[in-house]
Amino acid sequence: MNRISDPHFAERVRTSFAKQQAMDLIRATLPVVEHGRTEIHLPHWPGVEQQHGFVHGGVVGMIADSAAGYAAMTMVPASASVLTVEYKMNLVAPADGEMLIARGQVVRPGRTLIVTQGEVFAIKDGKETLCALMQQTIMVMHGKEEK
Amino acid sequence: MNRISDPHFAERVRTSFAKQQAMDLIRATLPVVEHGRTEIHLPHWPGVEQQHGFVHGGVVGMIADSAAGYAAMTMVPASASVLTVEYKMNLVAPADGEMLIARGQVVRPGRTLIVTQGEVFAIKDGKETLCALMQQTIMVMHGKEEK
Amino acid sequence: MNRISDPHFAERVRTSFAKQQAMDLIRATLPVVEHGRTEIHLPHWPGVEQQHGFVHGGVVGMIADSAAGYAAMTMVPASASVLTVEYKMNLVAPADGEMLIARGQVVRPGRTLIVTQGEVFAIKDGKETLCALMQQTIMVMHGKEEK
Amino acid sequence: MNRISDPHFAERVRTSFAKQQAMDLIRATLPVVEHGRTEIHLPHWPGVEQQHGFVHGGVVGMIADSAAGYAAMTMVPASASVLTVEYKMNLVAPADGEMLIARGQVVRPGRTLIVTQGEVFAIKDGKETLCALMQQTIMVMHGKEEK
Repeated sequence: MNRISDPHFAERVRTSFAKQQAMDLIRATLPVVEHGRTEIHLPHWPGVEQQHGFVHGGVVGMIADSAAGYAAMTMVPASASVLTVEYKMNLVAPADGEMLIARGQVVRPGRTLIVTQGEVFAIKDGKETLCALMQQTIMVMHGKEEK
Repeated sequence: MNRISDPHFAERVRTSFAKQQAMDLIRATLPVVEHGRTEIHLPHWPGVEQQHGFVHGGVVGMIADSAAGYAAMTMVPASASVLTVEYKMNLVAPADGEMLIARGQVVRPGRTLIVTQGEVFAIKDGKETLCALMQQTIMVMHGKEEK
Repeated sequence: MNRISDPHFAERVRTSFAKQQAMDLIRATLPVVEHGRTEIHLPHWPGVEQQHGFVHGGVVGMIADSAAGYAAMTMVPASASVLTVEYKMNLVAPADGEMLIARGQVVRPGRTLIVTQGEVFAIKDGKETLCALMQQTIMVMHGKEEK
Repeated sequence: MNRISDPHFAERVRTSFAKQQAMDLIRATLPVVEHGRTEIHLPHWPGVEQQHGFVHGGVVGMIADSAAGYAAMTMVPASASVLTVEYKMNLVAPADGEMLIARGQVVRPGRTLIVTQGEVFAIKDGKETLCALMQQTIMVMHGKEEK
């Protein structure tokens, strides 16, 4: 994996995450921020459910997209910001558990485009089940620092 | 487009939507349900924002995925339910507006798999701007009526 | 759709296509080049078949990807070239016919990224059947003229 | 990974591959067939080139799609066949090398749907470079043995 472009990447990522009211709305947290990798955790609570009592697929998508996008953000200079160009997600099992963990990681860091992968696991009785698998393209906006 | 399999499709779809607490959480509504086509509307309010004050890309994804999935549901028999297998979404502009409209439509109805497309528009000062474009695969679960 | 950046776009696109030996290998032609839209035609011949005698899904993908990529190329300045960043394709029916037509079109032209769609139809006894549906992201390389 | 459903999976997969004239056309071979995993190799020769002398992105797609589809086929019963529902591919570097290796593997084997991943590497001067990354959905057709 590439060298670290910004030694303060974790602080920069946490500050950005804290400003996302949508993450607060669904009660998502960002407990892990490493170089090229993040984790978003989501408790299962009624507000994020779909009609069968599982976590809504759209919410699963939100945390996968965000975890992988923030993984990309850990690898860009402090003077750059990142944008999601697109992502593709397979929902492979119902999100059935007490909490969800979305793991995002960079698989191909380029100067302008970064390719990432995301996985979402449901944790039930201490066991992880894969719920969703995502492949994503992130664009790096050089010289457009995130305010 | 295929013939109508269930004359009460709109009622069935609205009942399912009403049970999705996640749609209520983000304040999404489902004002349009036609055969092979639905619309989800979302007011722009602080709870759904990302760090720059636009609607969060994950929320854009939630309404695109749901609008297209419900478009598929309008075309299946009352005795069947639908599942999102996967989707791919391009985010082409910031979701900047007073409200968002997600339009989902069936492009290829099969017996087991239905391919749909979704578009999300931001409405600002009465003008629509395309924000997101999605292509999705839905699986039909025959004999598994939605409870 | 955007204004024309290069009045000689069709010539530029045809010259590029003529240099692709892989298109010649499968016997694909490019009979339609309009602003924001192209068509690639492929005769059904034994060399492009899969094990059941239909055209191979990978060959269907090749012509969809190329038709849409060249649609993007019609909209960039003569001083720029284009690259496929990624695409997503649904194969919705076997490619069963005497010939295939791949239609590519630009759906969202941006300065750096262009989003396109592609459709592939099989022509059998004069009737068109949709075989594949694609959504694609193209990157514009400004100042990197195609040699 | 799941148990083996058909002890003769490798023979079944090789027989199917041998019938694909399109694989012969591009000179692809299938030297590795393991349970849940295959490799397709492609020599770089003029017939598969694009306009810059690299291997055509569509050909890269063909071998990624096929390697992953055959990985899925290794895991289904002898009485079933497989179909590509859809795939999404990021092209991350030009396919520049003496040969390409496409590696397909099953990441989530389901009864009806199998999710796979594919990677394509270019080999140049003994060094592997990642060119393409794919996520794919395969459908299992039970009771429809491949002829």
